Amino acid sequence: MRGAIVAVGDELVSGRVANTTSFWAAGLLSRRGYRVLEILTVPDDREVIVFHLRRLLPQTDFLIVSGGLGPTEDDLTSEAAAEALGLRLVVNEEILSRIRENERAQGLPVNTLRDRMAHLPEGAKPLSEDLSIAGYFLEHRGKPLFFLPGVPSQFRELFEKKVLPYLEERFPPKDKVFTRTLRFFDLREAEINRAVKEVEISGVEFGFYPVFPEVHLTVSARAETETEARERVQSVVELLKDRFPEHLFGEDEEELPLVLGRMLRARGATLAVAESCTGGLMASLITRIPGSSDYFLGGAVTYANRAKVEVLEVPERFIRLFGAVSREVACAMAEGARRRFGADFALSATGIAGPAGGSPEKPVGTVWIGLSTPFETVARRFLFPGTRHEVQTLTAFTALDWLRRYLLTGDLCPRYRFAKTP
Amino acid sequence: MRGAIVAVGDELVSGRVANTTSFWAAGLLSRRGYRVLEILTVPDDREVIVFHLRRLLPQTDFLIVSGGLGPTEDDLTSEAAAEALGLRLVVNEEILSRIRENERAQGLPVNTLRDRMAHLPEGAKPLSEDLSIAGYFLEHRGKPLFFLPGVPSQFRELFEKKVLPYLEERFPPKDKVFTRTLRFFDLREAEINRAVKEVEISGVEFGFYPVFPEVHLTVSARAETETEARERVQSVVELLKDRFPEHLFGEDEEELPLVLGRMLRARGATLAVAESCTGGLMASLITRIPGSSDYFLGGAVTYANRAKVEVLEVPERFIRLFGAVSREVACAMAEGARRRFGADFALSATGIAGPAGGSPEKPVGTVWIGLSTPFETVARRFLFPGTRHEVQTLTAFTALDWLRRYLLTGDLCPRYRFAKTP
Repeated sequence: MRGAIVAVGDELVSGRVANTTSFWAAGLLSRRGYRVLEILTVPDDREVIVFHLRRLLPQTDFLIVSGGLGPTEDDLTSEAAAEALGLRLVVNEEILSRIRENERAQGLPVNTLRDRMAHLPEGAKPLSEDLSIAGYFLEHRGKPLFFLPGVPSQFRELFEKKVLPYLEERFPPKDKVFTRTLRFFDLREAEINRAVKEVEISGVEFGFYPVFPEVHLTVSARAETETEARERVQSVVELLKDRFPEHLFGEDEEELPLVLGRMLRARGATLAVAESCTGGLMASLITRIPGSSDYFLGGAVTYANRAKVEVLEVPERFIRLFGAVSREVACAMAEGARRRFGADFALSATGIAGPAGGSPEKPVGTVWIGLSTPFETVARRFLFPGTRHEVQTLTAFTALDWLRRYLLTGDLCPRYRFAKTP
Repeated sequence: MRGAIVAVGDELVSGRVANTTSFWAAGLLSRRGYRVLEILTVPDDREVIVFHLRRLLPQTDFLIVSGGLGPTEDDLTSEAAAEALGLRLVVNEEILSRIRENERAQGLPVNTLRDRMAHLPEGAKPLSEDLSIAGYFLEHRGKPLFFLPGVPSQFRELFEKKVLPYLEERFPPKDKVFTRTLRFFDLREAEINRAVKEVEISGVEFGFYPVFPEVHLTVSARAETETEARERVQSVVELLKDRFPEHLFGEDEEELPLVLGRMLRARGATLAVAESCTGGLMASLITRIPGSSDYFLGGAVTYANRAKVEVLEVPERFIRLFGAVSREVACAMAEGARRRFGADFALSATGIAGPAGGSPEKPVGTVWIGLSTPFETVARRFLFPGTRHEVQTLTAFTALDWLRRYLLTGDLCPRYRFAKTP
């Protein structure tokens, strides 16, 4: 079953707002086995809308149109739909009285401009039961057409609650699709791709997308039953897990800080951080996870050298002799945080995030990351590429990943792409 | 001058990746006065690409096509372009030798599959001077057609450096468009909209878009000269600044932490933070700004109560008597951070970000924010709505904004939508 998604709005074609809801809807449709032929964004222009509706109707089994259902003169989608389908616009009395009701409830004067929202192509059935959201369903020559509001939250609500269930009942997908997303850190797409080609199994499709600083790989299979599709995906997932036991850190919504947190919780271990160049990002990533207070005790953002000395008890002579960006200071920061917060493990980072502050000896992107365990404290030098924010993000993720891999394998010095021998 | 933007890619129509670069490009085009007729996203399907190129050519003055230029068998854009335009595909020898060179440099075996990238429609001119990025320019019946890579960073580079300058020389926009984005914090769209209607000036257009937790308003004007367009926009901007002297905090790329940082730098003042429920987000927002080390000394993320006591010297009895989420602890955290880091100002936050941890007395979203100045220390209670991450974000932005408004007006208790009388 093939459909198309059309989004109407001057704010979209002028680039003031990115049309992300169409892509969100396309994702849900394709995961259920429907094909999306095109995603089109057009201005609030009656003729243009009419042209595309007429063009798309013969090619598709269903159409999803969003935007242009509001009360202003720019909102032309219903008029265009009526014209394209050869229908009259008729007043929906229920919507009309709902409009008057709202005006009374909000103490607004009667505004007949709003009545436009009650003019629907004949045969249109409003989608929202209590009429609180604009949007309707039309059947045209046996094809379902959905007209939804442009406001993302309203679009999403009607799409999930009305459009998808309707399509699934009307066009039960012949094939079931099962998809799993695998999350990798510190591996190039090309390396994963090579492995994917080796494990290729018929009927399984792969999709890459980089979600900086991770790489995500979707593994999808179509089959008659969901169980069969799931099993096919799962067999590939197991192969890839064997192939990349350290780099494949999570599935679907399992973020890196969540995976690390789960490992710490399972051991009853606690964590603290000491941050200079990441400026709080490490702590912030950790504490976005609900329940992180079970294992995260706290962190020190010691941006100024004096703060490194006073809050983390980094020996002042280390900073004088080796500089703030050095193995010695990274180790002292990690140890200081472990002691200060009474944690089992501590991570530290000190480096030059840029754009200023680099030197030939320590160029922008130079970062020392420290790891302190109950048994030892080590620091490693990295050279991260990118903008200030990219260097900060790569640093924070690498630090968290280092502890994750240490807990997984016991190896204090796992390989990293951006690690340098000192 | 009217153009269209076509993005090619199965990953886009299947919703695995949202096509945001097309909308970014549309924004740049319309701000320069070009009209975008449609933004189309289609699969890697040769026939479909051919159909749309043929359909769009007669209607448009220029075309921008992205994606499908890579080395794999899915990459069909060049073949489709050649077919649609009635051109042969010919080998570009420079690109071919560049491919071989890259293989040598990276120690890869010769792979003739990559040669596909050297097959361009006849007459195509590569856009990247050093051929490091795929993408070319074609002139067809006097119309410029641009074929760009789908990778967002590469697309953006060629679009800004090659496509826009070409269009501006070839089709100097008759009308100049000037746009300014105004950034508001803690104001509803409806309130700004009311003011916008009062100041309405002919030829000035407004666009709203919420960028959580801010509201952004674009003010655009078209005029014969850029000076005229700019003046029209500027007169509206001044009116809105007078109307919202505290809530309109910045323009264009001026983020809230940047504006605050600039004020601190101008006074030679320094800042420290003490974070519990925001978990490092405040410090992270501050230190994303280059040069923040001029005024930011550091922060303490005291997630555990023990850390509040040991790192920030919060009296233990405060926690016992009033709880960690209390005015007393928020004040003691702010004072502790100011003392510990030797800063002029300190901000603190302690609250319940959720989803667990709420109680009837202190529901999820309850946050105490503290502000310590050289003269006094105060704390205020807030009740923020939303998910865990939304509560954390609203807390961090409100804290930074509070200090900004205090520095601006000297008022220790400015009004906030989510502030509660204790």
